[in-house]
Amino acid sequence: MTVVATALGGKVRKRVVILGGGFGGLHAAMGLRKLPVDVTLVDRRNHHTFQPLLYQVALAVLSPADIAQPIRSILSHQKNIEVLMDEATGFDLKQRLVLLKTGARLEYDYLVIATGSTHSYFGNDGWAKLAPGLKTVEDATEIRRRVLLAFELAERQMLETGSHPALNFVVIGGGPTGVELAGAISDIAKLYMARDFRHIDPSTAQVMILEGSPYILGSYPPDLQAKARGQLEALGVKLRTGAHVTDVQPGYVMVGDERIDAVVTLWAAGVQASPLGKLLGVETDKRGCVMVDEYLNPPEHPEIFICGDLAHVMQDGKQVPGVAQPAMQMGDYAAARIGRLIGLSHGSEGTGRNKGFRYFDKGDMATIGRKAAVANLRWPFKAHWSGFPAWAAWLVVHIFFLIGFQNRFSVFWSWAWTYVGEQDGVRLITGSQELPGWETKDDLSGNPPSRPLDLGSPKSN
Amino acid sequence: MTVVATALGGKVRKRVVILGGGFGGLHAAMGLRKLPVDVTLVDRRNHHTFQPLLYQVALAVLSPADIAQPIRSILSHQKNIEVLMDEATGFDLKQRLVLLKTGARLEYDYLVIATGSTHSYFGNDGWAKLAPGLKTVEDATEIRRRVLLAFELAERQMLETGSHPALNFVVIGGGPTGVELAGAISDIAKLYMARDFRHIDPSTAQVMILEGSPYILGSYPPDLQAKARGQLEALGVKLRTGAHVTDVQPGYVMVGDERIDAVVTLWAAGVQASPLGKLLGVETDKRGCVMVDEYLNPPEHPEIFICGDLAHVMQDGKQVPGVAQPAMQMGDYAAARIGRLIGLSHGSEGTGRNKGFRYFDKGDMATIGRKAAVANLRWPFKAHWSGFPAWAAWLVVHIFFLIGFQNRFSVFWSWAWTYVGEQDGVRLITGSQELPGWETKDDLSGNPPSRPLDLGSPKSN
Repeated sequence: MTVVATALGGKVRKRVVILGGGFGGLHAAMGLRKLPVDVTLVDRRNHHTFQPLLYQVALAVLSPADIAQPIRSILSHQKNIEVLMDEATGFDLKQRLVLLKTGARLEYDYLVIATGSTHSYFGNDGWAKLAPGLKTVEDATEIRRRVLLAFELAERQMLETGSHPALNFVVIGGGPTGVELAGAISDIAKLYMARDFRHIDPSTAQVMILEGSPYILGSYPPDLQAKARGQLEALGVKLRTGAHVTDVQPGYVMVGDERIDAVVTLWAAGVQASPLGKLLGVETDKRGCVMVDEYLNPPEHPEIFICGDLAHVMQDGKQVPGVAQPAMQMGDYAAARIGRLIGLSHGSEGTGRNKGFRYFDKGDMATIGRKAAVANLRWPFKAHWSGFPAWAAWLVVHIFFLIGFQNRFSVFWSWAWTYVGEQDGVRLITGSQELPGWETKDDLSGNPPSRPLDLGSPKSN
Repeated sequence: MTVVATALGGKVRKRVVILGGGFGGLHAAMGLRKLPVDVTLVDRRNHHTFQPLLYQVALAVLSPADIAQPIRSILSHQKNIEVLMDEATGFDLKQRLVLLKTGARLEYDYLVIATGSTHSYFGNDGWAKLAPGLKTVEDATEIRRRVLLAFELAERQMLETGSHPALNFVVIGGGPTGVELAGAISDIAKLYMARDFRHIDPSTAQVMILEGSPYILGSYPPDLQAKARGQLEALGVKLRTGAHVTDVQPGYVMVGDERIDAVVTLWAAGVQASPLGKLLGVETDKRGCVMVDEYLNPPEHPEIFICGDLAHVMQDGKQVPGVAQPAMQMGDYAAARIGRLIGLSHGSEGTGRNKGFRYFDKGDMATIGRKAAVANLRWPFKAHWSGFPAWAAWLVVHIFFLIGFQNRFSVFWSWAWTYVGEQDGVRLITGSQELPGWETKDDLSGNPPSRPLDLGSPKSN
């Protein structure tokens, strides 16, 4: 097949390929809306995931569709873009080609790579099945399945044998994701589950955070770290800092020689960059992030932009963090910069930016359970908020940044049901009905099947 | 463990075990609310599924949580019930015990079996993976995945090679489920997909119903069958009646010697009863349904009630159909009948019913795409409706029968977005990104990976 280029005012239309439909890729695509370019956005999934709310799917407050939307739909009104559900597997930088999993090749004049990051189990890949992390909609429904199933299996075993393993939930990692997951599990157990179970007491569930460093929420200022610690302890969450996990097994976790039982173990500890960074053949850091200059270009490739978690960007002596805000700003920047470069190649200055990228940090927030949060605000004013005001600010900001009116409406009402009405949320268990490690502790199949049940009277709560 | 019974006014409280949390089991449980009994409801899933709306999850209009709700939550205000997530695997009718998968046994005084039906592939179990049916939330998300993925793969192949297999969707079975699935696929393709794809023309998608009998909607009167046929043809759905499927293969279906290509094949043809019916050791019909008397009891077991799809009930010379309404009524009846039997055993007449079960048929409805339906009304008046009035009636009835205010609200708004606002719905592809049969037709991996793409200009629709 031959290359056909489209004429545009006598000049050849430039082709931009964007890899990844997360915050970085989507903002780059939207920024290219009015430029004379043809854009192809490639993602192996059909949907953009609003990751800051993913933990709410994992903990049964929101439905997957509330926070995930088809990339095609988001961009359907943008006529100069096509969306391709495929996966990049390599590059030919000399010929400016992206190699795709299907065997096809995609030609580009400019390339934006925003394929993000995934969990890192620090070389222990076997841990992945035992301690799922939280990056995708599938991850979220898997975590939901495990947490809800633990209560169901405990109720069943209590009813059938008169006892059940302690409902210990272990979250490995004390960053924002770990803190949000732990707070939410604690809430679910104490508030919603307690109503529905007759034989177990879900409020005895114990949530523990294991963090290797001396601090939880390491990127927050010390006063907010202390507030967060206090709010988590008020929820009954146990905090173990300086605790290095040395093994993850079905039903328990090892910290040095100490065994910590866990009916469900979740992973919020390490991330590593998408493997595409290394496939570029340029310098990467130890997590696989691509070292870029002030224009977000890897050395000697002014036509390639790295955005979001995959980019190693230094600013004022610190690395720009791998969260949503900088990814969006990098996507915006890459689009603007491409605008300028096209202008130059057409003999004009173009409309885009000549200056280097600079991250404008508006602050960070993390929720702690259903009525508290910490917020390190930097814009529109500097402040350290915690407790209910921080939580209210969090709600407003996240509703605002969600994409699509329908999703905002749906999330608003789900929060109203859940937080004001104290309704149940989305407590579906789908898929397998096994939990790793559960059988090994209390296998009923070896027992003689001859126990009539003590139904007694239902518990009077 | 010993049997402990609870005293109730000097009399021993009776134990009722209900197997299945579908319409039959749930109605039986709710009917036992005020009786002096301890109830255990056993289901292998944690949620009740509102099956009449399941096809809307499959076709991306509703989210799973809109139509599925935890059984515990539904019954949480009923103090005399406990819910057990487990699976019955057999019975000891003499000792009145239900055997559970975990090895435990459940004692009962009265037993309600309402475990419903599942797909029947008429002995060709290999077809199940190639042509999924629609009974569970997992089935629905799998059908959604396949239908949406077919469009994505076609777009990808069009973009990368310049052609794609014809988008033929084959629905095997022309009953209500088959008709509803076919109409909805046709709508999706023509209305929502057309906006979002640049290279393929989704409106060329072809939906075909293959029905073995001479009629679609066999249980409807002939005038409504004809209306349904007309409405389906207006949507562009091809109807092949008298078409016996002899083989299902990846990518195609055989009807006799004729090969019919299919990018997605769906199964809406046969059902068979839950295997628990046969495990009772009483008479069953050829689909495994239990032959019951007018009290819904199998012969010689007045303490056992069979409700819903699992029951073979004859009335006025016809078999009561396996749909939601009779299941609900049978559940109500079983509870009322148990009330009477308890009264008799206590020396009084009780409050329940002495008469046999009688199905009160209010009529049937099936939707055909997004603005039409057929309705065979029998109550509150007899009428044959079709087109928009039937569709409007369908909406009202289904919102009314949904369980839970939150779900009604959510479904109402989803319909408003989808049908009035013509918004997109829930178009998530989760899980695998393979489609059976797709590779066999157009495997790209054998081609030299050297084709720069013809991006051209995006299609100007």
